[in-house]
Amino acid sequence: MFQAEIEIATKGRGTYELTQRVAEAVRSAGVATGLCHVFTTHTSASLMICENADPNVRRDLETFMADLAPDGDRRFVHTAEGPDDMPAHVRSVLTQTDLTIPIKNGELALGTWQGVYLWEHRHRGSRRHVLVTIQS
Amino acid sequence: MFQAEIEIATKGRGTYELTQRVAEAVRSAGVATGLCHVFTTHTSASLMICENADPNVRRDLETFMADLAPDGDRRFVHTAEGPDDMPAHVRSVLTQTDLTIPIKNGELALGTWQGVYLWEHRHRGSRRHVLVTIQS
Amino acid sequence: MFQAEIEIATKGRGTYELTQRVAEAVRSAGVATGLCHVFTTHTSASLMICENADPNVRRDLETFMADLAPDGDRRFVHTAEGPDDMPAHVRSVLTQTDLTIPIKNGELALGTWQGVYLWEHRHRGSRRHVLVTIQS
Repeated sequence: MFQAEIEIATKGRGTYELTQRVAEAVRSAGVATGLCHVFTTHTSASLMICENADPNVRRDLETFMADLAPDGDRRFVHTAEGPDDMPAHVRSVLTQTDLTIPIKNGELALGTWQGVYLWEHRHRGSRRHVLVTIQS
Repeated sequence: MFQAEIEIATKGRGTYELTQRVAEAVRSAGVATGLCHVFTTHTSASLMICENADPNVRRDLETFMADLAPDGDRRFVHTAEGPDDMPAHVRSVLTQTDLTIPIKNGELALGTWQGVYLWEHRHRGSRRHVLVTIQS
Repeated sequence: MFQAEIEIATKGRGTYELTQRVAEAVRSAGVATGLCHVFTTHTSASLMICENADPNVRRDLETFMADLAPDGDRRFVHTAEGPDDMPAHVRSVLTQTDLTIPIKNGELALGTWQGVYLWEHRHRGSRRHVLVTIQS
């Protein structure tokens, strides 16, 4: 078991690509066949594997989520940290807190169009933590 | 590999915290660095990692899901077990059947505000099963 | 670590059961206690664990998703591959790219009503890839 930490200083709501940093952790671990587990320790930022070629995909995902769980939605009681507080929790629950990606021939076995992203759901940027655990 | 079973007698729709019971399984396994896999064997109850401080977060998640996949929704054909049958399957598919949490320094490496919950989606309570598998 | 590849020629949008093929990989690996990781290398097809008895459950899930992220939705900018392009990415993000299922007594420890499905989100069929990694 090999563990590595990644820190991302987000600048507000949006997606931040982690693929290269996770791939580097895999190379450091020197594992030929195995699994790479990615975990974020937050409930208002999450992880996703998403199309990596056209930034409009992630823009459309923002539009979709903003309509599905709108900021300032009057249905929400939990508003302690502002209008984007509860929508951030909803978005986190609908996406992933952890991902596991296979390692094959010493590399992440991602498809051509797959990227690994941290999705910051709060408008205010934050320091986000990701823990990568690699097993062979 | 260490496996432990957790049983939860739910009392109807709602969230049931599992964090302490999963943490105890980790301590029993005596693993310093590893991964803890949590799996539920149902399709009308699911797992989630969610904010653990304000119960209103989970109440708002109930509101959100009740609006997204309403009980008795006429679009649904699968109603064999009543108006909450198909909505329970929808909620399960939108959340998680399995979670993997890193183990660091012998403890679950959860963030401060992260709790592990079983989410019962049926109004009638049930005996729910969770299988914890720990690897080092 | 044991890895096996599964290929599925999909015939358009819909769910394709993988349970038996994943179970065969587990038997080939000869693992008594362990974990079975299932990964798909696509961003317009995904994985889910779902009720396996009544096909109407999966039909209702199609209805639900078709209403939630409609084909041809004018909110979406990413339409390069047609009206089902962006909805396919949305559906993938809301479901799973990877699943981990426990192995107990040499078999997948699925519940009685749980099946493993590939969900093709594009109307045009495609050759889809699933990578199974088994650890003991």
